[in-house]
Amino acid sequence: PTALGLSPKPSPAICVNPRRRRSSGLVVRAEGQTINPEIRKTEEKVVDSVVVTELSKPLTPYCRCWRSGTFPLCDGSHVKHNKATGDNVGPLLLKKQ
Amino acid sequence: PTALGLSPKPSPAICVNPRRRRSSGLVVRAEGQTINPEIRKTEEKVVDSVVVTELSKPLTPYCRCWRSGTFPLCDGSHVKHNKATGDNVGPLLLKKQ
Ligand code: FES
Ligand code: FES
Repeated sequence: PTALGLSPKPSPAICVNPRRRRSSGLVVRAEGQTINPEIRKTEEKVVDSVVVTELSKPLTPYCRCWRSGTFPLCDGSHVKHNKATGDNVGPLLLKKQ
Repeated sequence: PTALGLSPKPSPAICVNPRRRRSSGLVVRAEGQTINPEIRKTEEKVVDSVVVTELSKPLTPYCRCWRSGTFPLCDGSHVKHNKATGDNVGPLLLKKQ
């Protein structure tokens, strides 16, 4: 076992699939990763509905990063996720007009 | 190097953070993973707006899995992602009433 207490061979959860992009360097991408680690994991599929006529504010951001503490609403947590990972995800903005 | 051509020490992209849940077994979670591998990666942050008064259909699903071929709309690709990974993500449904 390594310092992490893991066997050194890759587990299915962290298999990597290295591939070469056209002209740039090696890209290592994790395959088969869940994108929602925490939210409503007892639900088979997390689907939310918004009746748009009931929106109260002119602009309401909805989360697409699965890191919000106020999911399905966006609470800005995508910023921390993007910084930590180099990702570029952001919310869906619902506008009343 | 391993068979994957990677050095055996974990790279930042695939670090794992094993932790014990209260009473159940070991949970190994990949940390620092991007959730959007493909969509509009030249944009610093992918934000989309919907003017809800302009929605044409009674029900419009918007993607939150970052796998849709018609992003920001949902095309059902979350089903394949969930099957492949054991995840439970799904769309945001915008309803006109
Ligand atoms: S908190 Fe998830 S998109 Fe903003
Ligand atoms: S295709 Fe992404 S949520 Fe349906």
